[in-house]
Amino acid sequence: MSGHCDCHSPSTRSHSPAATAHSRRRSHTRLRTSRGVSPAHSSLAPPRPRSIPGSDSVQPGVSRRMRPVLLMKVFVTRRIPPEGRAALARAAEKRCNRPLNPDPPPEAHPAPHGPSLQLAARLAAQPFCEVEQWDSDEPIPVKELERGVAGAHGLLCLLSDLVDKRILDAAGANLKVISTLSVGVDHLALDEIKKRGIRVGYTPDVLTDTTAELAVSLLLTTCRRLPEAIEEVKNGGWTSWKPLWLCGYGLTQSTVGIVGLGRIGQAIARRLKPFGVQRFLYTGRQPRPEEAAEFQAEFVSTPELAAQSDFIVVACSLTPATKGLCNKDFFQKMKETAVFVNISRGDVVNQDDLYQALASGQIAAAGLDVTTPEPLPTNHPLLTLKNCVILPHIGSATHRTRNTMSMLAANNLLAGLRGEPMPSELML
Amino acid sequence: MSGHCDCHSPSTRSHSPAATAHSRRRSHTRLRTSRGVSPAHSSLAPPRPRSIPGSDSVQPGVSRRMRPVLLMKVFVTRRIPPEGRAALARAAEKRCNRPLNPDPPPEAHPAPHGPSLQLAARLAAQPFCEVEQWDSDEPIPVKELERGVAGAHGLLCLLSDLVDKRILDAAGANLKVISTLSVGVDHLALDEIKKRGIRVGYTPDVLTDTTAELAVSLLLTTCRRLPEAIEEVKNGGWTSWKPLWLCGYGLTQSTVGIVGLGRIGQAIARRLKPFGVQRFLYTGRQPRPEEAAEFQAEFVSTPELAAQSDFIVVACSLTPATKGLCNKDFFQKMKETAVFVNISRGDVVNQDDLYQALASGQIAAAGLDVTTPEPLPTNHPLLTLKNCVILPHIGSATHRTRNTMSMLAANNLLAGLRGEPMPSELML
Repeated sequence: MSGHCDCHSPSTRSHSPAATAHSRRRSHTRLRTSRGVSPAHSSLAPPRPRSIPGSDSVQPGVSRRMRPVLLMKVFVTRRIPPEGRAALARAAEKRCNRPLNPDPPPEAHPAPHGPSLQLAARLAAQPFCEVEQWDSDEPIPVKELERGVAGAHGLLCLLSDLVDKRILDAAGANLKVISTLSVGVDHLALDEIKKRGIRVGYTPDVLTDTTAELAVSLLLTTCRRLPEAIEEVKNGGWTSWKPLWLCGYGLTQSTVGIVGLGRIGQAIARRLKPFGVQRFLYTGRQPRPEEAAEFQAEFVSTPELAAQSDFIVVACSLTPATKGLCNKDFFQKMKETAVFVNISRGDVVNQDDLYQALASGQIAAAGLDVTTPEPLPTNHPLLTLKNCVILPHIGSATHRTRNTMSMLAANNLLAGLRGEPMPSELML
Repeated sequence: MSGHCDCHSPSTRSHSPAATAHSRRRSHTRLRTSRGVSPAHSSLAPPRPRSIPGSDSVQPGVSRRMRPVLLMKVFVTRRIPPEGRAALARAAEKRCNRPLNPDPPPEAHPAPHGPSLQLAARLAAQPFCEVEQWDSDEPIPVKELERGVAGAHGLLCLLSDLVDKRILDAAGANLKVISTLSVGVDHLALDEIKKRGIRVGYTPDVLTDTTAELAVSLLLTTCRRLPEAIEEVKNGGWTSWKPLWLCGYGLTQSTVGIVGLGRIGQAIARRLKPFGVQRFLYTGRQPRPEEAAEFQAEFVSTPELAAQSDFIVVACSLTPATKGLCNKDFFQKMKETAVFVNISRGDVVNQDDLYQALASGQIAAAGLDVTTPEPLPTNHPLLTLKNCVILPHIGSATHRTRNTMSMLAANNLLAGLRGEPMPSELML
């Protein structure tokens, strides 16, 4: 359900000519807001869009670019990483000084680098949209989203933007493409979107390495007790070298259990292997002998995995079968010296049971990149435990990956507006 | 200079018979001290050794074991991990209920498992020493060390115990073996020790995997900004998912430079490889083509390594050539997006220059497991930086490795007292 979409014939610009005039000159300004308070509730001046005189002399940038009539309108709900922003900016340029690669005659010059390079070249060469961006790092308030999306042909949104019937109604009949900067699409009312013939782009497959890297980082920082160690340096607890101080549990000769040996689970096992892991176990819907062979990983039952592993990494999807999978029973089966890591979804874990297991010393430590809810309230009991490391869902947070995601989201959007195959379209 | 020592002929107990009577019954008690204050300076009762009635009915344990006359005396300067403590306790047992493996006739039954198992069996079978331990996790005050070592045949000490002429004089002519629970021997006055014919055991080769694991943990926690992320969860900085928040630099397609491709450097490279590292560089006294082949690592000059690497890990020894190697020039050559990690010795780095490089954004981040001095004062400028992660020298801090070290130190000591080959003797 991802990758290059072959089922959409590249009938050039089937959706593009119906552009609407946008003579208003406006840009959304960034409004600094206090933590957790949306601009709409700020006591500062209300964050109304304001008009900015558009001319070729203004600084290059998405939010200040103005296009004359007959351009498609794109609304972006947040500041996005630079590479995606640049891709949109190029599409909004009045003219490319030098087209990267003018469209070749369809048959005479088959694209040597495949469809995506050819597509990128075409997109870069032909300005055809105006782009407005909610210029903030914080989520856009619903009211502003309704205003911004009105009349738009394309919407680039994030996980935090609930795109439901109300927003779709606010957008109106122009809306042809929704491109979300996320793997997940839970925030999109897919039935309603399908009914209206709107295409959806998303960003799968680009997070695997980065998320696996984060999982291993979290496992190591938890089992080697780095946050406690850092704290001891700062608070003067570091005195002399002590044989028994801050000892953790290492991976050498250990058994690692992976809940869910999918793409990310495999990428985690691949990274852990040279640390001297003796044995890999895994669970899942069914055995995956081909993938498991690389690690000589053994398919076992969930209770067996809990009982035999020194390290457990949860990397499965959230499904009815995995919701609450890691509960009191699970933790009671674990070794007292074992370390538990979850990078999938918070709901796979019963957090009350995890708290009890950690507080009572039933298990050694836990590292979580995902919680229920997110963000976790700062007074949550798990945050009182030294042996629990909690991260704010930063699995994919590297400059490279976030840029790649934003490029993909921009290219999905632009390709969708042109009626061309999207690099990653969600088939509805 | 390590491994099984073959140059000492196993002439049974050449040093052992000269045991002295020790009819005093005493044990050192543990004195709880406030942080950073040695027992000698505590306002509590002075930590004088106190006599404890010895009998077979007391709890088993090193510090309460008393031996009758004609036993060798061993002094241990600190609490040591359980496996080493148990090895000493066995040697101090009046009798083994069931010897593990009685000495075979020398020729008739060649030891099937090599000298160390045979040795362990012999040691277990034959009680011959009394052991006194300074029963604290904190370093022993010099005065107490002088008292404790007086008349001892064997001394088991740590890096923090300066064994100089004064201590050797205090020990007197009985002292035959010093076993240090460390790889380093900078704390031992080796010339003086050699002059007196004292043998020295140490604990090399058991730290490689654990230290390399810590190096990778530190690199990942630094480049993926885990300490900042943990802090944001606690202080409420985690609000919603943000595309640009807490982005770090990942290893995918990176260039990693390793300063010193010795055992630990290789173990680090081996662990980093499956993270998608594109290219390994290394520096050192000379190229090591055989070791480098595993990683297709290229030998380069130090300036080239600094300039081309996305991640730099310092894993060399401290020598006149490496002291201050990572200085202003070095950091100025580094990329602005590069991450620097040091797990070797603090003096390889000029910390003032590192501070400048981090504070000015000349480099992205640094992770240090070693500093100058150790412990680092809590008001050190490096501790004010968000992009600097400092650990309290915990490279070898796992339960498994510390137990292995303590076993090795105990076995070195006991073998030395018996005049047998030590598992790891430092050749003087």
